[in-house]
Amino acid sequence: MPVDVALLSLDNPVFHTYVLTASLMILKLMLQPWMTVYRMLHIKGGFRSPEDARRSPMNPQPDASQLEANEYVERSRRINLNDLESIPAFLVAGLLLVLVEPSPLLAQGLMWGYVVARAAHFLAYITAQIHDIRATFWTLSSLAVIAMIVCVLLRVL
Amino acid sequence: MPVDVALLSLDNPVFHTYVLTASLMILKLMLQPWMTVYRMLHIKGGFRSPEDARRSPMNPQPDASQLEANEYVERSRRINLNDLESIPAFLVAGLLLVLVEPSPLLAQGLMWGYVVARAAHFLAYITAQIHDIRATFWTLSSLAVIAMIVCVLLRVL
Amino acid sequence: MPVDVALLSLDNPVFHTYVLTASLMILKLMLQPWMTVYRMLHIKGGFRSPEDARRSPMNPQPDASQLEANEYVERSRRINLNDLESIPAFLVAGLLLVLVEPSPLLAQGLMWGYVVARAAHFLAYITAQIHDIRATFWTLSSLAVIAMIVCVLLRVL
Repeated sequence: MPVDVALLSLDNPVFHTYVLTASLMILKLMLQPWMTVYRMLHIKGGFRSPEDARRSPMNPQPDASQLEANEYVERSRRINLNDLESIPAFLVAGLLLVLVEPSPLLAQGLMWGYVVARAAHFLAYITAQIHDIRATFWTLSSLAVIAMIVCVLLRVL
Repeated sequence: MPVDVALLSLDNPVFHTYVLTASLMILKLMLQPWMTVYRMLHIKGGFRSPEDARRSPMNPQPDASQLEANEYVERSRRINLNDLESIPAFLVAGLLLVLVEPSPLLAQGLMWGYVVARAAHFLAYITAQIHDIRATFWTLSSLAVIAMIVCVLLRVL
Repeated sequence: MPVDVALLSLDNPVFHTYVLTASLMILKLMLQPWMTVYRMLHIKGGFRSPEDARRSPMNPQPDASQLEANEYVERSRRINLNDLESIPAFLVAGLLLVLVEPSPLLAQGLMWGYVVARAAHFLAYITAQIHDIRATFWTLSSLAVIAMIVCVLLRVL
């Protein structure tokens, strides 16, 4: 059987896990800006572009103060930036891992471990837990991706 | 015929569309910083790093005010950040979609819909249209990626 | 031999180079935040979230000044943001390049050229060289990815 036919088929349990976990993380990446949007609409502020304080159907009573940074909104933006620093790397690292035929259990453990750690990190961040809790989950998610890449490098070097 | 041999071949029209639209979006991602560079050189300011206000061949008459935030430059940076929040997710979502053998017409429609929506979003942003216009195109582009992931999840769950 | 069986196998020297260079760049992406963490711990400041100035085991003597922007920390964050603007695009562009069966030498040259240019860019940035040096390496890395995409588009158009 040709190697990567099996590898990139949903019959390959590692690829199946990858597609599922990658889809969940892409959804997270896409939905975080919606939380920012929700928060901006909710407080009618925290906008970033000067034109956002111009009258429009969605902003009938504009005010220059709408352009001031607002912690409620900025928190969602920081979470989004944190996602950007991590999720795209996970998405490609996971695909590389699938393609080097890893130990299935290890690969699936790392992928789900990443998803769980990121979910916990999000909950700690959005509820403003003390730094050490958030940092612990962030560390676990970072180590999961690093471990995935170490697995890949061990196969390729 | 093995499944993904067909899937990742340019003979597969869905993959062909993916490679074309992904290439266009990667170009967009790479060219936006060049717009920022152009704008910084044009106004000789909007720099971010302290050393950028040191004398150099490209900056023969440095000035501390060159480090002040400048809306003309910041607009391009905001567009870049907005790209970062969306394009990498599209790139991986598109590949996953190709690999789960989607309905070709739906897949190609979502991919081109994303490209068109992002192009319109860029035009609305760079010309500082009122928020609601920009938000409409951003929403369409976001929904296109979310729809792609929903298609993937429906195949994998 | 089916096309992409060879293409996505480690026996394909272009794919081998891609997996190696992509892994290195993912590691870079994952390790830069650790430099930010190190710098924040080192100066006990440069934090971004209000809760990070609350007492915790890792921050036994909190102080509101810990939330002020600090250039030593911000430099690492700017490098991270610069990575985000470039590395995810490289990761996907490289995979697309592998899949369109490029000239091996050209493809491998572009991939390694990117890695070397980004390494030099990092060294110039972290040591605060004048802008023109950093800009030169950034330009080379940007052109490498653009060249990869041009190669892909020439095959697909």
